[in-house]
Amino acid sequence: MSGSRVRTTVLRAAWVLLGGAIAAPVGAAEGMWTLDNLPRAQMQAAQGLVPDAAWVDRAMRAAARLAGGCSASFVSSSGLVMTNHHCITRCLQQLSSPTLNRMATGFLAREREQEIRCPDFEINRLEAITDVTEQVRAATAGRQGAAYQAAEDAARARLTRECRGSDVENTRCDMVTLYRGGQHQLYKYRRYADVRLVWAPEQAVAAFGGDPDNFNFPRWCLDAAFLRVYESGKPAPVAHHFPFRAEGPQPGEPLYVTGHPGNTQRLLTVAQLEFLRENLGTEVIPRNSELRGLMLQYARGDAEAQRLAQNALQGIENGLKVQRGQLLALNDAAVMDGKRRAEAALKAFVAGQPELAARTGDPWAEIEAAQRIRRDLDAEMQLLEEGRGFLSVYFGHARTLVRGAAERSKPNAERLREFNETSLPQIEQRLRAAAPVYPAFEQARLAWSLTRMRSQLGADHPLVRRVLGQRTPEQVATELVAGSRLADPAERLRLWAGGQAAIDASTDSFIALVRSLDADARSLRKRFESEVQAVERQAATRIAQAKFAQSGRSAYPDATFSLRLSYGEVAGWVEKGQPVAPYTDFAGAFRRHTGAAPFALPAPWLAAREQLNPAQRYNFVTTHDIIGGNSGSPMIDREGRVVGLIFDGNIHSLGGSFGYDGTRNRAVSVHAGAIVEALRTVYDAPALVQELLNPARP
Amino acid sequence: MSGSRVRTTVLRAAWVLLGGAIAAPVGAAEGMWTLDNLPRAQMQAAQGLVPDAAWVDRAMRAAARLAGGCSASFVSSSGLVMTNHHCITRCLQQLSSPTLNRMATGFLAREREQEIRCPDFEINRLEAITDVTEQVRAATAGRQGAAYQAAEDAARARLTRECRGSDVENTRCDMVTLYRGGQHQLYKYRRYADVRLVWAPEQAVAAFGGDPDNFNFPRWCLDAAFLRVYESGKPAPVAHHFPFRAEGPQPGEPLYVTGHPGNTQRLLTVAQLEFLRENLGTEVIPRNSELRGLMLQYARGDAEAQRLAQNALQGIENGLKVQRGQLLALNDAAVMDGKRRAEAALKAFVAGQPELAARTGDPWAEIEAAQRIRRDLDAEMQLLEEGRGFLSVYFGHARTLVRGAAERSKPNAERLREFNETSLPQIEQRLRAAAPVYPAFEQARLAWSLTRMRSQLGADHPLVRRVLGQRTPEQVATELVAGSRLADPAERLRLWAGGQAAIDASTDSFIALVRSLDADARSLRKRFESEVQAVERQAATRIAQAKFAQSGRSAYPDATFSLRLSYGEVAGWVEKGQPVAPYTDFAGAFRRHTGAAPFALPAPWLAAREQLNPAQRYNFVTTHDIIGGNSGSPMIDREGRVVGLIFDGNIHSLGGSFGYDGTRNRAVSVHAGAIVEALRTVYDAPALVQELLNPARP
Repeated sequence: MSGSRVRTTVLRAAWVLLGGAIAAPVGAAEGMWTLDNLPRAQMQAAQGLVPDAAWVDRAMRAAARLAGGCSASFVSSSGLVMTNHHCITRCLQQLSSPTLNRMATGFLAREREQEIRCPDFEINRLEAITDVTEQVRAATAGRQGAAYQAAEDAARARLTRECRGSDVENTRCDMVTLYRGGQHQLYKYRRYADVRLVWAPEQAVAAFGGDPDNFNFPRWCLDAAFLRVYESGKPAPVAHHFPFRAEGPQPGEPLYVTGHPGNTQRLLTVAQLEFLRENLGTEVIPRNSELRGLMLQYARGDAEAQRLAQNALQGIENGLKVQRGQLLALNDAAVMDGKRRAEAALKAFVAGQPELAARTGDPWAEIEAAQRIRRDLDAEMQLLEEGRGFLSVYFGHARTLVRGAAERSKPNAERLREFNETSLPQIEQRLRAAAPVYPAFEQARLAWSLTRMRSQLGADHPLVRRVLGQRTPEQVATELVAGSRLADPAERLRLWAGGQAAIDASTDSFIALVRSLDADARSLRKRFESEVQAVERQAATRIAQAKFAQSGRSAYPDATFSLRLSYGEVAGWVEKGQPVAPYTDFAGAFRRHTGAAPFALPAPWLAAREQLNPAQRYNFVTTHDIIGGNSGSPMIDREGRVVGLIFDGNIHSLGGSFGYDGTRNRAVSVHAGAIVEALRTVYDAPALVQELLNPARP
Repeated sequence: MSGSRVRTTVLRAAWVLLGGAIAAPVGAAEGMWTLDNLPRAQMQAAQGLVPDAAWVDRAMRAAARLAGGCSASFVSSSGLVMTNHHCITRCLQQLSSPTLNRMATGFLAREREQEIRCPDFEINRLEAITDVTEQVRAATAGRQGAAYQAAEDAARARLTRECRGSDVENTRCDMVTLYRGGQHQLYKYRRYADVRLVWAPEQAVAAFGGDPDNFNFPRWCLDAAFLRVYESGKPAPVAHHFPFRAEGPQPGEPLYVTGHPGNTQRLLTVAQLEFLRENLGTEVIPRNSELRGLMLQYARGDAEAQRLAQNALQGIENGLKVQRGQLLALNDAAVMDGKRRAEAALKAFVAGQPELAARTGDPWAEIEAAQRIRRDLDAEMQLLEEGRGFLSVYFGHARTLVRGAAERSKPNAERLREFNETSLPQIEQRLRAAAPVYPAFEQARLAWSLTRMRSQLGADHPLVRRVLGQRTPEQVATELVAGSRLADPAERLRLWAGGQAAIDASTDSFIALVRSLDADARSLRKRFESEVQAVERQAATRIAQAKFAQSGRSAYPDATFSLRLSYGEVAGWVEKGQPVAPYTDFAGAFRRHTGAAPFALPAPWLAAREQLNPAQRYNFVTTHDIIGGNSGSPMIDREGRVVGLIFDGNIHSLGGSFGYDGTRNRAVSVHAGAIVEALRTVYDAPALVQELLNPARP
């Protein structure tokens, strides 16, 4: 690592919005940077040092992601993986049953033999990045609409397959499109499909404070968990990992987050943001709010109902806070005016250069026109193609099986992209997973989603008429759930293996439903892809090129669930005139304990209270620019040692979809020392502590 | 009635927004006009005739309103009142019990002796309008903020009391503020507090199509009901009423709606609309959507749960459609750009006249600044002062009792306005009403609202800490409901009669809760009224005066639940390129019947099918400019005969809060002939038919 002196950075810049000609001010930690394009000058200015190539390479190889949508990292040479508890709840739920609630009890494998496989988990580690912008551009040149989309899909299928080669089980290649079309890259991953659970704390301490505290700070959560990747039935040895530094981070020292931010919208045009504002307020938030209300009432049933609904609520409520934060940002005149100014500045720059203007055209107007079509198609797309009208695990499996049979009979390059050959291993893993299905719960969700579909489309819409006929949503949900065997993995695998003939012959209620809707769903998707998505992609590509002409590669691309590096430091902020201190400690958790959920520490914590160091730092905030998907990211120091584990952002960071405000956007982490102290004192896990602190152990 | 020739009007004008210098185009039916300021020239141009003074006077005296928030009309000389079924559901629910569901069964009094009193209904008939603008202006002159608000409150209390005189039981006076402060008037009403139920159809036919069909057209609803006002225990004779014209309206004939539109926001400034957009999207719609989900799941319980939740859902779902329509309008660039242009034009007009400019100042900036304070206060105002954090009938009664004791000990002019002497009769009627309370249902609503309050304010907010302490929302709701006797009218009346001493001595859980919160709630409200409301009112008054300077009294004021007249005609519209016919018929209802709710006609309809005239017109649409509160308005012809009964608007009319679009905003009515035919053939109610068609009968 080059450079040496640590400088305290001064954060200013309210809503420094990328997208215009404005360079990030000295000291701001804005940006989710691709590892091949770090902002060296800005990092030097802010932190007094810049990582060297070896450091970056190691950071890449010790980072990981859960394919389902979280970040992670290797923390021992024996394939031990650190992530958040909230990233593995799906595994814990799948390993639970009416008599064993692993969300409540937590889990610890004292011996490696006790590590249990997570039914459908997959972990990816980035191995190489290859730029294929020219290949994609050549393949799509001169095409428009559906033809453009088909050409891009075919190029993606071909390039990812070439990249992957023949090692289907262990290699994965994704096409990553950056700058909304400005750059295309192949990300080649080592794929681990045998992922086992090592340790998870009780939900009560992992998500202490529940929804009320979520996205708030101060905070007292042990939102951490360990998995282990296996190969050939043994722990996988890994060449690179991040060792633990239990004393944690000091204020002002340079800190890095290597993670997989999922999705930002900082490069969208004003027309796209206006659509988003309308859509969040009139569709997305109302839908999820309704589902929250449904689940809150469902949770008032028996113990199983409570468990299932509480699990669902965690995700729904988390999503709602994010969406609300986004909608507030999109209603903030300062944000939208900033976007308008940046867009006007870029347009003026383009207009000032005849050759560039001719090449660019008016992509903003094209995107605006596409938003009108998006508005017309959105409800049906969501309900039918995205399946939100049929909310249930059955529908998801049925869709996979019906489409999978049709798609696998086509050449790879002509398939729907999610059925590319490179995707089949994950699909099969999901179909095979023996996760329990709860019919009454599925029926409640399904009946609700059918009711909502009828509200949205009206009773006379052909889709509603076809699905409901003369029946109520409740009746249809009852019949569908009673008539399906897709809860059984064996039945799913039989239909998958049987291909089109098995699908055609099936009398399963959900297979029949999906079969009857599929032609409509496909034609809707085709229209959406050619009239909205392809138009946006082509226009955004030209906007990206105009931006490159304006300011080179000095900007970072929107997040795409690909590996990024953020830099920053420990720092509190000022909330309504009051300073918020950056660290909490164990003593604070006990002060906050009321005994009533979600503020009830679990029994092992109460028992260990006297043994725990009350001054142990527990959670802390930093200036890193992160977003959903960064959950589970390691926070590392200049030596590449783990000092913390990202698990949240503060409430202000939720507007981070659209920009970064260094004065108040904060990432929230679990302190490395808190993890070690809890493992040692509460969970009596000496082997795991030993592995973290002395990772030479094989 | 003057004038004669009926002209077919051509509706153009998309979003003709009042508020600028733009006159309504010839033919458009825009406007909810006060009866003392009808747009004579526009009506003449559109319809070829203008009502004369006698017609207008009769229209005023035969119109009525339900004090709870609906329109109505007198339809016989014996005090028979027509309104919508959905306006009397509260009465039907209060007259129901676990063993008798009058929402499901409907009701018919074959003899007057069988007419049952609606526990807390009040009907008002307008008698006189007096302008008191100068008195109010004199009372508030030179005051700002809290002092302004106090002076206006005191003037209101004094003027309404003077207006009412000593006849507390039979007279009611409301201060009506028009043009958001431009004009103040006293509306003097004949008050009827003995209101009895005469006829209501089954909910299944009144709201046929339920939420899916609500605000849609074509439509097949018998959303009608009859009440009767009594005085001294006998049917009240009335001097003016609207007789029935069973053949109903013809396309193109001039038609009028005399009703009480509740609330429009057409005169708000852009800053206020932007606050509304944010608030609808991030607070109002999410809250109601959650409650919808809760109730949908609650309704999956036993029969009683289903009944209670379905009743609640009707209002919630109706509100959500309205709010969604409003939010779509506020996200419509055409709407907001129109508002911005009109505001800019008025500002320019003011700036061009030095004397006017000096008098006007910059009220737009003052309102914008007040919106920032509103944003800060809104959550607590809603939760604490509006009581949304404590959703239950108990809290409402407790608030009335605790505040009532304190307020009644003050001079009239110093009281909170809802405890003015003129309001006490309605309050006492509500406390006395023997409406059943369902503890489990209240507990579910209360637990949810407490949960939501904690989510909104955070667990560390003082209000949340004080209310929840160490307990969960569910625990608190259980304890509160178990500890209250306020479901019993006798206990409520005892506390009301006992005044402050009884309140101080009470150990009722809800009384104690409200007592402990009241100082905070009052100080919050005071801040809101002085820093937001008074600022807005004062600024809006100057905006209104600037508008009068710009265009005289040619505009109509925003709706204020005071009597208005709209003019228009029967006309369909074009929906996605397809014409929508303006009438439906009985045959269509039977075609739409599926047998499954909400598309199940009740048994008496199925039994009478062969006797009913299938070609009888059933529902129809007209161009009248209406809004919520107009429900129950009579649709009358030039002779003042009832041809229909307004019960809804189409989906486009929901944006009508902010403007009127004559090309597609439509009011939806039940045809007069459908009511008569149903009463005669389905409900076997010859006396009622006789009374409607031959209203000379005493």
